[in-house]
Amino acid sequence: MADVMTSEYRLATEGGLKEFVAAALTKVGVPPEDAAIVADVLVAADLRGVESHGVARLESYYVSRIRAGQIEAKPNVQTARETPTSLLVDAGNGLGHPAAKRTMERILDKAEQSGAAFGAVRNSNHFGIAGYYAMLALDRDMIGIASTNSVRYGAPTFGKDVLLGTNPLAFAIPAQKEPAFVLDFATTTVPKGKLEVYNRKGKQLNPGWAIDANGHETLDPNVALKGALLPLGGYGVDNGGHKGYGLGLLVDILCGVLSGGAFGNDLPAPSDGPLPGRISHFFAAFKIDGFRDPAQFKADMDTELRAFKDSAKAPGHDRIYVAGEIEHEKTLYNREHGVPVHVKVWDGLQKLAADLDLPFDFEKT
Amino acid sequence: MADVMTSEYRLATEGGLKEFVAAALTKVGVPPEDAAIVADVLVAADLRGVESHGVARLESYYVSRIRAGQIEAKPNVQTARETPTSLLVDAGNGLGHPAAKRTMERILDKAEQSGAAFGAVRNSNHFGIAGYYAMLALDRDMIGIASTNSVRYGAPTFGKDVLLGTNPLAFAIPAQKEPAFVLDFATTTVPKGKLEVYNRKGKQLNPGWAIDANGHETLDPNVALKGALLPLGGYGVDNGGHKGYGLGLLVDILCGVLSGGAFGNDLPAPSDGPLPGRISHFFAAFKIDGFRDPAQFKADMDTELRAFKDSAKAPGHDRIYVAGEIEHEKTLYNREHGVPVHVKVWDGLQKLAADLDLPFDFEKT
Repeated sequence: MADVMTSEYRLATEGGLKEFVAAALTKVGVPPEDAAIVADVLVAADLRGVESHGVARLESYYVSRIRAGQIEAKPNVQTARETPTSLLVDAGNGLGHPAAKRTMERILDKAEQSGAAFGAVRNSNHFGIAGYYAMLALDRDMIGIASTNSVRYGAPTFGKDVLLGTNPLAFAIPAQKEPAFVLDFATTTVPKGKLEVYNRKGKQLNPGWAIDANGHETLDPNVALKGALLPLGGYGVDNGGHKGYGLGLLVDILCGVLSGGAFGNDLPAPSDGPLPGRISHFFAAFKIDGFRDPAQFKADMDTELRAFKDSAKAPGHDRIYVAGEIEHEKTLYNREHGVPVHVKVWDGLQKLAADLDLPFDFEKT
Repeated sequence: MADVMTSEYRLATEGGLKEFVAAALTKVGVPPEDAAIVADVLVAADLRGVESHGVARLESYYVSRIRAGQIEAKPNVQTARETPTSLLVDAGNGLGHPAAKRTMERILDKAEQSGAAFGAVRNSNHFGIAGYYAMLALDRDMIGIASTNSVRYGAPTFGKDVLLGTNPLAFAIPAQKEPAFVLDFATTTVPKGKLEVYNRKGKQLNPGWAIDANGHETLDPNVALKGALLPLGGYGVDNGGHKGYGLGLLVDILCGVLSGGAFGNDLPAPSDGPLPGRISHFFAAFKIDGFRDPAQFKADMDTELRAFKDSAKAPGHDRIYVAGEIEHEKTLYNREHGVPVHVKVWDGLQKLAADLDLPFDFEKT
């Protein structure tokens, strides 16, 4: 964890940081119980080391858009359709996190009763890390699935139009002594932010990351930023780019089409500026005991995960991870030592505190 | 379709080829109704242009293993656990196709009643193309999911042991006038067979396809054949190899661990020779009308799929496909013109006919 212990980071208490996030959102009109959910999801991302989806986005993604009237602080959230195994929610253009968390919890309740349930949320906004919602299944001996479409950044295989979001998919499966298996990944090869980082550093991109505006593969981050991200698997079909493209489109269908929300061309593009999100989410959960005794299953999960972790390492590597393991260890470490917040983000939060007339006192001492 | 019209292929009638497959299996003791299912699945693969999973495997994967006692011709198939939304079947080391098809059909019946259902089959064998089972959902206005673990060919990210199958995932979603969205992909970058083809042709592999036995990436197909396949995303994490690895492990968990079947180290490796499969499958289905009116959904699916197909093409490409479209068009073409069978496969079938004393008369004239 040495990377976060440099002077580039300051450390916050988990509780203090959550209180600050919730207070900031409450100040711009978000109901306190909604604000607390957003705070929990954002700080969970920072705890897990997913800085890009944590408090770094508080001002630009949430507070500023609420103030500009692009996101409803007090949305009219409505159940659009409901059965014992399905749930469709219209989030009323509110924040994504409360609508997503409450929908996933209702789906888990349904799955508790029925064994399995699927759900979707339309007319929503950025909901943070997809893994957060999938992981709500873990303590209930269920397998959880969460996904969202997003602002468009990527092109389809053989195409050049920007049509696909980063469209993450998350799966959470409990183990016994091992940390849960939590797979949470964007269906593009890299996120847009990676191009920006490489551009700032003047570094060349890898092949398979992006195309220019004419649809040619490019290694120039500045050119790529005017082009599009490539799907997981990269350019063309030789390395499986059609698989990543298929997964990205799958997510757009399960989220946008299934929910009756925006999809495809109707999703916002970055060039549209900060419009209402028009984002949709998709969730599923099912009970392990529909198949096996959960305790036996979780013991076997330990065996499975250890088989991979204990297997022979490739040259230059001393460890093999399973999905979610790094994030789990970072969470444990950061809970003990403090939540690392990049100094630039820290300064932004301090400015926001002054702006909203809030106390700024969550530094871990 | 010009590629299959060369002298390398001969054309079979769909009905005749299915009858032959079924007759061959019946001859070695498979009940006729089971044999008919295998025939339907194998010929569906050839119709879809997925030669590797079609009648090419009839002798080596199925007939010879039944004759060698490695697969049970008349297995004791049992329901191991059942609820209104879940189903676990033990296939009794029988052929994968009948157990998989009947399980998926029971899951669809459950989903028809309950709205959603999940299922798994353990102690099974190779079941052909995963997409076949997912597609059974299409005519019932449901979304279908199918998956299977497999003999081990691939290594985890940062590892060199052969621990992961090609572990395909398939999703089928109906549209109205457009062909259904059918995403069916191996979670390794390429299948093992691709290394064999490149080895025969003396061609270099792409980076991202395989490692040698020491865990170093290699472009030499002969060396790679003694090593392991890489997960979708390739070597290491820079191009998302950890995502493909995560998907492969997800499939092994959903199939092998959830079913109480074989998983991880306990799955057979190619070096084990043709042992009983010990393969498991995973299925899911849910009703579209739990979310929306299916007719409206399917009309929106047309809009979605056309948005991608009609979008701007990258240089050198005149068409953008959506998942399942190529296979759909090949099926229509091959239904009209005959099922293409590679001459080497054709000769193998003729030999099998002689061996089993069966008529060999399915050539399309």
